[in-house]
Amino acid sequence: MKVFLVFAHPNPHSLNATLKEHAVRKLQEAGREIQVSDLYAMKWKAVADADDFPERDNSQPLNYEAASGEAYRSGTQAPDVAAEQEKLLWADAVILQFPLWWYGMPAILKGWVERVYAKGFAYGRGLHEKSKYGQRYGEGVLQGKRAMVCVTIGGRVAHYGPRGVGGQIDDLLWPIQHGVLFYPGLTVVPPTLFYEVRKANKETVRTFCEHYESRLLSLMETEPIPYRTQNGGDYDEFQTVRMELAAESSGQFVHQTDPVYRSNLETTGPSDFSPVHFARDSRSPSAEGTEPATKSNQASRVH
Amino acid sequence: MKVFLVFAHPNPHSLNATLKEHAVRKLQEAGREIQVSDLYAMKWKAVADADDFPERDNSQPLNYEAASGEAYRSGTQAPDVAAEQEKLLWADAVILQFPLWWYGMPAILKGWVERVYAKGFAYGRGLHEKSKYGQRYGEGVLQGKRAMVCVTIGGRVAHYGPRGVGGQIDDLLWPIQHGVLFYPGLTVVPPTLFYEVRKANKETVRTFCEHYESRLLSLMETEPIPYRTQNGGDYDEFQTVRMELAAESSGQFVHQTDPVYRSNLETTGPSDFSPVHFARDSRSPSAEGTEPATKSNQASRVH
Repeated sequence: MKVFLVFAHPNPHSLNATLKEHAVRKLQEAGREIQVSDLYAMKWKAVADADDFPERDNSQPLNYEAASGEAYRSGTQAPDVAAEQEKLLWADAVILQFPLWWYGMPAILKGWVERVYAKGFAYGRGLHEKSKYGQRYGEGVLQGKRAMVCVTIGGRVAHYGPRGVGGQIDDLLWPIQHGVLFYPGLTVVPPTLFYEVRKANKETVRTFCEHYESRLLSLMETEPIPYRTQNGGDYDEFQTVRMELAAESSGQFVHQTDPVYRSNLETTGPSDFSPVHFARDSRSPSAEGTEPATKSNQASRVH
Repeated sequence: MKVFLVFAHPNPHSLNATLKEHAVRKLQEAGREIQVSDLYAMKWKAVADADDFPERDNSQPLNYEAASGEAYRSGTQAPDVAAEQEKLLWADAVILQFPLWWYGMPAILKGWVERVYAKGFAYGRGLHEKSKYGQRYGEGVLQGKRAMVCVTIGGRVAHYGPRGVGGQIDDLLWPIQHGVLFYPGLTVVPPTLFYEVRKANKETVRTFCEHYESRLLSLMETEPIPYRTQNGGDYDEFQTVRMELAAESSGQFVHQTDPVYRSNLETTGPSDFSPVHFARDSRSPSAEGTEPATKSNQASRVH
């Protein structure tokens, strides 16, 4: 198995970085090949703009989509963009690992998507005819490969449950898991999520690392999120889920076949606010007073 | 009324830029004051990193949250960050205007949020005690001001309806409207959304401009999205919506009081795929052949 891990955290002493280093070491020990794009360390260019097209006459107004398609077709993309596409094509599995910042990916990772997902590569593929609406949502350049997100979160798991104030985590991950990963054909497995990361003491960090390791090593055998494919017959000609399927439902879960995958089911009750990774007493004052595992274990902001 | 418009589109000839210019002109003609942050034109620094803290000893590992709080407290923030905070404090209304790229804000705008929303300014305010859980979600530095997003979208409105393949637009906007705007206290009014922007001919663009203008001029009188305030009694001690309120519901709409606001209600039926901004025959072959309104009216990508 060849793993491509895209990593977006500014602090090499963070819990998030600890998880990444553990993952790389254990995957290598298990005989997997791995490439890491450490976006902060690479000083990744986050903004999609005219500088992405070195061969283009940039005195003309920029239509980014058209310029992206032309650069991809003619082999004149920016070298950093082409290099990331090569890593995607090389991999059997793609991991996006990041802290949840303002309910989404850090800007540097969003900009990686915008630049690397060129027209003709990740979108704008395939014909629109009869019951086919282009190669996307289950079909595309990355079809047959797998993907997973790994996210560190400052808030409590209850904040991201079905009625939590932050919004349910599956909704926050929908634009990433379905819109970014499933779109060009990746098979998406359930996310690896770590909550209340500031409270993690050494023992908890060890538990986190072991959990992440086991998710990565079993990635190719894990039951995926059962998203409906766009061209598989479940969508009508407007690309809406046919009314005879789950007629009573709306929202993101209607885009999965039964039984649907949902995160955080353990928090449906109002009194449960401990992540499964923590012992039940992990929020007690004594646990909060234990020594942090790293110099800075604040891998994600409070919100 | 003082309006602060944050604008994130790379092409000054785009439909999105046409909308922005129309809005600025009409607001000024109506006697409103307006400031625009044109992030691409400003070459806004999109990545939150150690360079944001010029006074800090950056040989030490970066905890961005802590560094942000210290820089805000001590008045040593990067000048571009402090200037944007001043504009937010100046305004009566804040507009985020952008194309939908990969189901969210462009990276340059996400990075504006990450850098301008300093700790102590936009989050990390207020005490956690008794039934108060910090100043956020309806309380905070921007309380009493209003906000709206204006988004151009390449896809059809049906793609973003309750069962559309892109996900319902309210879910895609939730991290922005609730997580970014409501969080520091802004009162959020329903979004201004333009679909199928590539198909917009001159007449349609005029309709778009008039619609945006009317939304902006009536902003202070518009019925807001009725989000529940975090500290108003509707959330329990885990910040989940109390079970006695809308017990049968989950997902983002449980965070509103009745009657809830939903976008795209007109697309609930499977046969409706014309944005309300278009004439019913706008997708006919003749309409598609009409002259585009601007040199490049592709304000947003297909997906």
